[in-house]
Order: sequence, then structure tokens, then C-alpha cells
Amino acid sequence: MARGRTETFLTRTFDGDVGGRRPDQLVVEEPLEIRLDDVLVATTMRTPGHDFELAAGWCHAEGLLAGAPVETIRYCATGSAVETGFNVVSVSTRGRAPTPAPRLTASSSSCGLCGSDSIDDLVDRIGPIPGADAFRPEVLAGVPEAMREHQGLFDATGAVHAAAAFDATGHVAVAREDIGRHNAVDKVVGRLLLDGRLPAAGLGLAVSGRASFEMVQKAWAAGFPAVVAVSAPSALAVRTARRAGMTLAGFARDGALRIYAGPELEG
Amino acid sequence: MARGRTETFLTRTFDGDVGGRRPDQLVVEEPLEIRLDDVLVATTMRTPGHDFELAAGWCHAEGLLAGAPVETIRYCATGSAVETGFNVVSVSTRGRAPTPAPRLTASSSSCGLCGSDSIDDLVDRIGPIPGADAFRPEVLAGVPEAMREHQGLFDATGAVHAAAAFDATGHVAVAREDIGRHNAVDKVVGRLLLDGRLPAAGLGLAVSGRASFEMVQKAWAAGFPAVVAVSAPSALAVRTARRAGMTLAGFARDGALRIYAGPELEG
Repeated sequence: MARGRTETFLTRTFDGDVGGRRPDQLVVEEPLEIRLDDVLVATTMRTPGHDFELAAGWCHAEGLLAGAPVETIRYCATGSAVETGFNVVSVSTRGRAPTPAPRLTASSSSCGLCGSDSIDDLVDRIGPIPGADAFRPEVLAGVPEAMREHQGLFDATGAVHAAAAFDATGHVAVAREDIGRHNAVDKVVGRLLLDGRLPAAGLGLAVSGRASFEMVQKAWAAGFPAVVAVSAPSALAVRTARRAGMTLAGFARDGALRIYAGPELEG
Repeated sequence: MARGRTETFLTRTFDGDVGGRRPDQLVVEEPLEIRLDDVLVATTMRTPGHDFELAAGWCHAEGLLAGAPVETIRYCATGSAVETGFNVVSVSTRGRAPTPAPRLTASSSSCGLCGSDSIDDLVDRIGPIPGADAFRPEVLAGVPEAMREHQGLFDATGAVHAAAAFDATGHVAVAREDIGRHNAVDKVVGRLLLDGRLPAAGLGLAVSGRASFEMVQKAWAAGFPAVVAVSAPSALAVRTARRAGMTLAGFARDGALRIYAGPELEG
């Protein structure tokens, strides 16, 4: 379902003086409702496109699939408006996933109250990830530039984040863009899930912004042994990566980076 | 309640070669549970500090207070761990706000399925905002630099966003930092609310990142006639600002900017 991801508006520049009106491409941002086996599990503001991957990836990252295969994914019109039907995606496991509990709080994928509960939960659910030593710093440092070639929407609008899965040689296997940084990751994870490539052994995850807890949590849930971020990580993200046995690098720019977790730090 | 907002980790740099281990300051990221009149209404990942403002500002932005005054705000220990008590904030209106409905979906402050529902809701609830013509482009263009002086946590960690309220001369009245861009805005709005300065007539809102729909929605709910962002807006953010009658400027850097909504665009 091809939908517009940019929209043109008349705007003016100011640079000492106010200039004439001219058209400007802006990124589209619309809500997406995600349903799993007919239960509404999330509403997220996203850039349309790769919605099925986003929905599948989100369900996987939240642990809602619990290993059940995705049987079908479809747009689902509710009410009379055809247009808004493309803002509702329904993921079906034909009831093989545990019945999702409707969420009782707004926002965030956090599940513990001091962060460490969330980490313990991941340790129990998934365990440490092997294979971090396959990702050399010199390869990780080059990944943002390789991902950059897949950021056409960013070039047009300056308003979107990107995420990419790459192999140990730095080759980008999947790249996605979205106004929400977490959505870009969910789209990448969703693609790998639908291709039967999870857990993502032998692949690293690159993100165009910061590495917050949520990003590392999603990477862990998908089984990525390495995460590289263009910007800084948070303290909780670093603690999480260290518990996971993952490599975590940040400030990956111009061929340099900083190592926050992983064998290269210990060695 | 002063709590650490940064934490030190040993890390290594890579710049062609892997360097020695050295201490690095990272921003703290922890979940905050927000309760309104004893009902859990939100969980958000945030940087500790100004938690009361964040809780009050969030409740206001979501329209949950419905004009009721905030009577008390306090940290609230649940269970045995004293530490996690600082991750739960309870806002009380002594029952004068409408009883909050527990949220049924995860994430996002979106309330409509194509965005336009959300905008109609704001038109009905708040109406257009007067006073946008008081904010001159040359003043707006200088605000990010003025806000920059209040971004000490960013200087230390490179990992946090900022928001600020400023007057029509460009003077910064309140500035806050947080790992979540929306949290920084909620903290600013919460401070103004607790000071009895809402609606924010005569004040503009500056944000260090992009202007997504959520940011403009929060600004509208708080009554800011102008929003200036360091980065790009989304299409929905621009449509929202135009319906609100607000000035919206983006890419405000080095004394220049781009005007997306407001009298300066029409004139």
C-alpha cells in the first residue's frame, strides 16, 4: 500500500529578511493503531510506510508474540472512513499468541520501576546474547555512513530517524526511516521477523540518534549482538547492554566512536 | 529532592585505534509513574529532576485537570523499596479533576485516527490562540542560542533535549532538560502551571529538536502563541499550528529560520 510519506507546504525563510513563499517538503506523521488478535495493543505516531513491519516488529519487541508465528497482517477499516482504515493494522496469530492484556497506562515500553526490574525481565525472558565479538570497532564506525545512503526521506525533510540491520562486514541488510526513532527500529525488526531471520544472530543494529533504554531493549529482544548509535547512550542503556553481553557504541561519526559495552571494552 | 542526573561509566574511544579506558558522564534515564488522584495515568522514561513539574505538566497537556487546581504533588513509595518511591509521583486535585480513565493503549498522546480528529478536539477544547504577531522572526531566530546557555546537562552528556519558555523580546523565562523531548516540554509547562502562569499568553515555546504533532499539541494546550524548533516540523505539526493560529518556525540556527505557520507567513 503505497502512501505519501511527504507533503508539500508553502513556507518562508528568514535570514535577516523574510523571503518569498516557496514550497517545502515535510514528513507525514499520522497515528497508527496496532491490533493483535483483535485486541488494541498500541497507538503510535508514525510516518506511513512499512506499516505491517512496524506492527509485527512492535508486537515482537514487546514480547506479545511469545514465539507464535504471525499468520496474517492487514489494514483494517473501522467506522465509515476508508482513509483512516490505513491507520489501523491488525496482526493475527490466529489466537496462538497469549491473549494480550489491554494496556493500563499511557506511553513507554518500560516495565519496571527502577529500570533494573526491566533488565531482570529481559535476562529471564531472553538471556545474554552471544556473538558480540564479531563486530569490530572499525566496522561499526563505518556503519552510519553506509546507513546514510538509505536515508532519502531525511534528505527530503530533515525530520526523520533511521535504523538499520547490518552484518559483521558493515553491509546494510535492511534500513528503515520514521519520524519516531523507536518506529524505525520496529520496522527493521518486523522485516527480519517476517523474513524468518530472528533472532538476529550475526547482525548489528544501527540507529541515527541516541541509544536510550528502549532502543537497547528492542535490540536485545530481537537478538542483535551489537548496537551502534550516532549519538549518546543513556546510563540505563549502557547497564542494559552490559547485562545482555552486547556491544554498544555511540557517537559513531567520521570513522570514530565511543565504546560503552562489549568485549572491546573489557579486553 | 535532588537526585543524580548523570552517572559515570568507564568507556573507551576508537579513532583508528582503541584507546584506554576513561570515565564518561552519561545521562540518567529512569521510568516515572504519574498518578492523578490515585489513578495511574502514565509511565514515561525520563531524566530525574523537576519530577513534580513533569507530572503536573503532563496532566495539564493531556487535559486531565480540566481546569481543576493542583492541590498537592508528592513522591509516593509503593512496595518496600524506598528508592523506587522517587519514581512515582502523585498529583492530587482532591478529586476536583474528572476521574481519570485508566488508559487502554500503550504509548503516544494521540487521540484521533487521522490526526484531524485530534486537531478538531483541540479547537473545541481550547480554540485558536491569540497573540502570535508579537513574535518577530528576528527574535525567534535568536532563541535557540539563548536556550543553549541553559543546557548544562547536554554539555555534559550530549544525550538530552531541552525546552524553554521565552517572552517576545527573546528572554528565556524557564528552561528544562530531559532525555525525552516531550518530557522537557511537560516540565516547562508544569513550572508555568505551578506558578499560575497558564495559559502562556505572551510566551513562546522553544524546543531543541523537531516539532512533531505532539509538541505543537502540548504548546497549544498550554496556550503558547509561538513555537520555535531547532529542527524540522512534521506535516501534521504544521497543519495543527495553522489551525491554532500559532506561529511555527523550524530550522532555527545561526540567526536564520524557516516559517511554517503564523502571521509572518500570511503577510
